[in-house]
Amino acid sequence: MKKRYLMTPGPTPIPAEVALQMAEPIIHHRTPQFQKIFKEVLENLRRLFQTKNDILLFASSGTGAMEAVVANLLSPGDKVIVVKGGKFGERWAEICLTYGLKVIAIDVQWGKAVEPVRIEEALDKTIKAVFTTLCETSTGTLNDIQSIGEIVKKSEAVLVVDAISGLAADELQTDSWNVDVVVGGSQKGLMLPPGLSFVSVSERAWNLVENKSPSYYFNFKKYKAALPKPDTPFTPAISLIIGLRESLRLIEEEGLRNVFLRHQQLAAATRAGVQEIGLELFSQRPSNALTAVKAPAGINSSKLVSVMRDKFKVWIADGQGELKGKIFRIAHLGYMERFDVIIALSGLEMALQEMGYKLELGKAVGRAEGVLGG
Amino acid sequence: MKKRYLMTPGPTPIPAEVALQMAEPIIHHRTPQFQKIFKEVLENLRRLFQTKNDILLFASSGTGAMEAVVANLLSPGDKVIVVKGGKFGERWAEICLTYGLKVIAIDVQWGKAVEPVRIEEALDKTIKAVFTTLCETSTGTLNDIQSIGEIVKKSEAVLVVDAISGLAADELQTDSWNVDVVVGGSQKGLMLPPGLSFVSVSERAWNLVENKSPSYYFNFKKYKAALPKPDTPFTPAISLIIGLRESLRLIEEEGLRNVFLRHQQLAAATRAGVQEIGLELFSQRPSNALTAVKAPAGINSSKLVSVMRDKFKVWIADGQGELKGKIFRIAHLGYMERFDVIIALSGLEMALQEMGYKLELGKAVGRAEGVLGG
Repeated sequence: MKKRYLMTPGPTPIPAEVALQMAEPIIHHRTPQFQKIFKEVLENLRRLFQTKNDILLFASSGTGAMEAVVANLLSPGDKVIVVKGGKFGERWAEICLTYGLKVIAIDVQWGKAVEPVRIEEALDKTIKAVFTTLCETSTGTLNDIQSIGEIVKKSEAVLVVDAISGLAADELQTDSWNVDVVVGGSQKGLMLPPGLSFVSVSERAWNLVENKSPSYYFNFKKYKAALPKPDTPFTPAISLIIGLRESLRLIEEEGLRNVFLRHQQLAAATRAGVQEIGLELFSQRPSNALTAVKAPAGINSSKLVSVMRDKFKVWIADGQGELKGKIFRIAHLGYMERFDVIIALSGLEMALQEMGYKLELGKAVGRAEGVLGG
Repeated sequence: MKKRYLMTPGPTPIPAEVALQMAEPIIHHRTPQFQKIFKEVLENLRRLFQTKNDILLFASSGTGAMEAVVANLLSPGDKVIVVKGGKFGERWAEICLTYGLKVIAIDVQWGKAVEPVRIEEALDKTIKAVFTTLCETSTGTLNDIQSIGEIVKKSEAVLVVDAISGLAADELQTDSWNVDVVVGGSQKGLMLPPGLSFVSVSERAWNLVENKSPSYYFNFKKYKAALPKPDTPFTPAISLIIGLRESLRLIEEEGLRNVFLRHQQLAAATRAGVQEIGLELFSQRPSNALTAVKAPAGINSSKLVSVMRDKFKVWIADGQGELKGKIFRIAHLGYMERFDVIIALSGLEMALQEMGYKLELGKAVGRAEGVLGG
């Protein structure tokens, strides 16, 4: 029996309604039939992003969209600030260096959010852009984008936020928080397979689009030119866009506020549960999307992830980079509700016991029920 | 009733077996479970490409993979030959120019294949690469890659072939024809949705990989480093790779020779049928993947495409670029067999009659049956 429970911070489970839509006979994209779908998707995406800006869709994973932003907005030699503090902050820096930018790195201890004042101190008139993340997936940490937006808007720089894992889990008010560019991906809060990515672009950001670096497949101007129809310059990920229509409808139906509240409650229950059995949270400012937990003394988190996956069929994520073997990450992201948290904690209790960790079975679950019952 | 018939040269119909595999609960990619699937896919892809070379998989449409080849193999100022003769030959030229290459264009009249001797004449020691297409989708024309390979192997240049629409329809012996780089896409002969692309890379081509142009998401070295596991540097298009496993199994089961023969027969039947009702083929060297047909006097092909789609639910493709309104294209590509050709021709007969073209109903179908009955 292959009944499995996917609790990783991407990919996340796909609702049957969405999977069935994607399994319908495929249609051609240069047709009125597809344009109607694409138009609905663009409108609902703008509501999700809380923006009036253009949103561009790419057939790529999130990293492709991150590179697209760097290639389209900046030119070799431009100075930018990059907030590091996890694998995805570091990815921004790697991409910026690949494109010959001068990177002013703000190094943040993994597991901590950046203090906005550090960005204020680093900003000057020569800075073209500030790159950061909403939820830093590698540590489960939420940055204070609202405060960062207040600071960056007073400068000449544009603010670029990787919201790939945070989107639809953590509040992000693109326009009222002055975020110029938001990057999203399909396989997280949007409850789809990977392979589709999004970039919202403010007018301020469009003013930077000059393409001094070579860019063809990800060329923003080509995508903007196709938007009025709406169309894409190259074959879009048709099946994922059809799935996206359905997942955005699910989000609309529940209401975006309720979606955030649900994620918040699941996060709170997970955290209360793991702490109840003596475990320690890794992140000092946790995101609603996932909970990063320190492996207790004597337990290797890579091994714990294997036991949970292979014995209990609950798939969680290990730490990344230096944190491999040291932390584990439980996602409560996307198509998740209270019993998903119960399963995650129940699997964790049984796996930890099997590995020799002393705990009273049912305690984490019970504590979570206290949060979830309300 | 929405029973529709997709006869466009990408996307193509998706077999139910493949759609159902993709609708199964998604799994995480950094797991032994996914690696096992990915390994099988890579082995079967190599058989399909008829190569021992590495094959890299990208979450992108085919154009992304085309750009990846240019960005990874060549540096600004490098001299390359590009065979133009349709929209996709021109796309190679556009991408090469975007990356600052010196393009020696071989202009071929749309609808004709390139004469290999023209490549021989243009080749000299300063040429780093020759770019061409197997099937030029915009005109339905097949280039003689075997002869081109014989010529290019005697030079210092690498041969790069866009086989996106031809793969699995037209014979392509990557290794024995000396093709260094082959680009493929998912939504054509591989019977999948768009969003997954492939590049096979010979040892000779690997020697060119220096990344003097910026490249992160499509960086060949990152993908090669992940291959032994096998893994990908960024989140792969998981659901499409799971679908690909199934479509490659279908091809293996039928046998690659039989797959080519089937496409050849469907192509022959389609051509015999359209000619029987007085229509003229557009391509002088047609591919097995699709048939391009000149719209007869007084018939606008854009209108014909609409009538077929909106009245008869048979989706074919109009001409592209200058050929819009002048030719139409019927694909017999991927998950297609004899009755798909019958439907295409039957729809065409009824649509043409409705538009005032004089023909005897059933004649194209009858002629095709003569070819397909055997």
